[in-house]
Amino acid sequence: MKVIGVIGGGQLARMMIGPAVELGLELRVLAETPDSSARDRATAIGDYRDVETVLEFARGVDIVTFDHEHVPQDVLDALVATGVAVHPGPAALAVAQDKLLMREQLDALGLPLPVWAKAESVDDVTAFLAANGGVAVAKTPRGGYDGKGVAIITDPSDVSAWLAAGPILLEEKVDFVRELAQLVARRPSGDVAAWPVVETTQANGVCSEVVLPAPSIDRLHVVAAEIGRTVAEGLGVTGVLAVELFETTDERILINELAMRPHNSGHVTIEGSVTSQFEQHLRAVADLPLGSTASTAPWAVMINVFGAMDVDRYARLGPYTDVKIHNYGKEPRAGRKVGHVTATGADAADVAYRARAVAEIFHVDI
Amino acid sequence: MKVIGVIGGGQLARMMIGPAVELGLELRVLAETPDSSARDRATAIGDYRDVETVLEFARGVDIVTFDHEHVPQDVLDALVATGVAVHPGPAALAVAQDKLLMREQLDALGLPLPVWAKAESVDDVTAFLAANGGVAVAKTPRGGYDGKGVAIITDPSDVSAWLAAGPILLEEKVDFVRELAQLVARRPSGDVAAWPVVETTQANGVCSEVVLPAPSIDRLHVVAAEIGRTVAEGLGVTGVLAVELFETTDERILINELAMRPHNSGHVTIEGSVTSQFEQHLRAVADLPLGSTASTAPWAVMINVFGAMDVDRYARLGPYTDVKIHNYGKEPRAGRKVGHVTATGADAADVAYRARAVAEIFHVDI
Repeated sequence: MKVIGVIGGGQLARMMIGPAVELGLELRVLAETPDSSARDRATAIGDYRDVETVLEFARGVDIVTFDHEHVPQDVLDALVATGVAVHPGPAALAVAQDKLLMREQLDALGLPLPVWAKAESVDDVTAFLAANGGVAVAKTPRGGYDGKGVAIITDPSDVSAWLAAGPILLEEKVDFVRELAQLVARRPSGDVAAWPVVETTQANGVCSEVVLPAPSIDRLHVVAAEIGRTVAEGLGVTGVLAVELFETTDERILINELAMRPHNSGHVTIEGSVTSQFEQHLRAVADLPLGSTASTAPWAVMINVFGAMDVDRYARLGPYTDVKIHNYGKEPRAGRKVGHVTATGADAADVAYRARAVAEIFHVDI
Repeated sequence: MKVIGVIGGGQLARMMIGPAVELGLELRVLAETPDSSARDRATAIGDYRDVETVLEFARGVDIVTFDHEHVPQDVLDALVATGVAVHPGPAALAVAQDKLLMREQLDALGLPLPVWAKAESVDDVTAFLAANGGVAVAKTPRGGYDGKGVAIITDPSDVSAWLAAGPILLEEKVDFVRELAQLVARRPSGDVAAWPVVETTQANGVCSEVVLPAPSIDRLHVVAAEIGRTVAEGLGVTGVLAVELFETTDERILINELAMRPHNSGHVTIEGSVTSQFEQHLRAVADLPLGSTASTAPWAVMINVFGAMDVDRYARLGPYTDVKIHNYGKEPRAGRKVGHVTATGADAADVAYRARAVAEIFHVDI
């Protein structure tokens, strides 16, 4: 039996547990704390930035993969040196870890991006603002997620603290109609499988709702899948890749961000697709044949649950027997992603209504 | 978080792991051996017939349930005495544990059974054979499964060894067109949910193939569901109940056997139904609202894999990307149930073909 070691014990690792059981793969998790979401499969608790901790965890593991992209390059290099398979590999993860490097490489692949620049000084920021209507999106190259490390700016003073720490990324503030996400999976031996592109809705910079498929003409799905495939092949990504996209008011598709792991926008595939992103990630990193990405229903809608997901409230689910619940086993905390719900069906409005109704049952203001 | 303790570490307990993770229920397993199928969640290894072992396992558990019906009544009574919820309870399990008691109780509920009798002597057997065309199905009241403890007899000498050990069950040899199984789930607070009745095919007394729904007129589904509901309510079963049925050549539906737990005939619900039997069993024993039993596709076909389910053979699954694999993580052994595969779709013949093709990929003669 192949042993897959996941670095990071969040809900992404947790949602790999079920598929690993069914595929007959042994899953082991290096968790941050004893109460991490994926604690059920934790075989080690420790700091993923520490080489010794990670190498000790990886002993006896066939394939190392990740719950997040934050493992430092020196740790990744040490892992590769032991001979264990690492998916995605260090070169791909380097691109996910540095938003400036990401833009350089995506540009080199000829992929569509918002106007961007590397800014190292107040003058750089001033020049970019002047060239882009006086407004820009500033991002720290490293460490940002879920709206952190991102700011909309109109003056260099808005980013003086960030600039003092090093270069930053500036991007045009895109006028978008909506946001999309293209998920693909790629095996080390080369096969790529793409799910239909999904529509995502953000609240306060965090994904709140996902619709599979994105309501659209077929051409959008072809274009988005081609972008996903090009990124996966061009950057040598193995496992699941999520490409966050903007659909602009002038009908362009631009790449926003990348994630080289299962992604919030792909939770909807658990019920909405023949093969979920979690099963597919395991198949991909283990270099097994990829599963079908066909949809199981005309529509699937996923809604995140923030704050608390109390099992006691399940008693109120009676009327919504067909909405599926995913509880991440986390302690309640304001704004924390603690679970999600998914509905499927033939009527898009009804599916969204049912998913939202169940998410509301769990809604708690903390 | 509610803690559910499963006695028995076979594939039924194993397939509860994924749903428990997603529902946010903590699953603990009392496994027979360290390499039991559900070893990932084993918190104890030991003999389920030993009161001390079981009570120690159940400490800190909210609800005890089962991978099989073989836990002795004195152990069950001791569990109940500690105050832990036990589902199904001892009274229901007593009926599942004794085929003679089962017939008595099903008769008392007015349910349709093959002609049966309790035989305690050679004369009893002779009389039953004479009254039933010279042939009968003999069963030991306790301990039989998967074709063991069952014999077709034409002479009292065929069962002399069994008779020496105590009373046996004799049943008419039913002329059946096919076998069916009705799965239902019942909460302690009373709600019952029934899946569509399935058609099952046996090979050498062991379930080999299941079709959801059983191809049939609607009336069969109504009758079978009513039988399932009556058994669950009449015997006070909590959790999943499987009622194995015969459809006879003269168009009667007769009860063959009962199982008070998830059942091989229900594996098809993992992909074929909105709520799988494993998720539903957890919901039911935890007294949570039951999930929808609606089908996700017009047809679903499950095929058991016997002998060995080698991960290396996954490489040959390429053409069958939409057939789902369930590997029980068991050591290979001739005739052993080691996994199953399920296909779904709109064309019954195509669905069966794809499921059989993938099962064949795993076929190994040991």
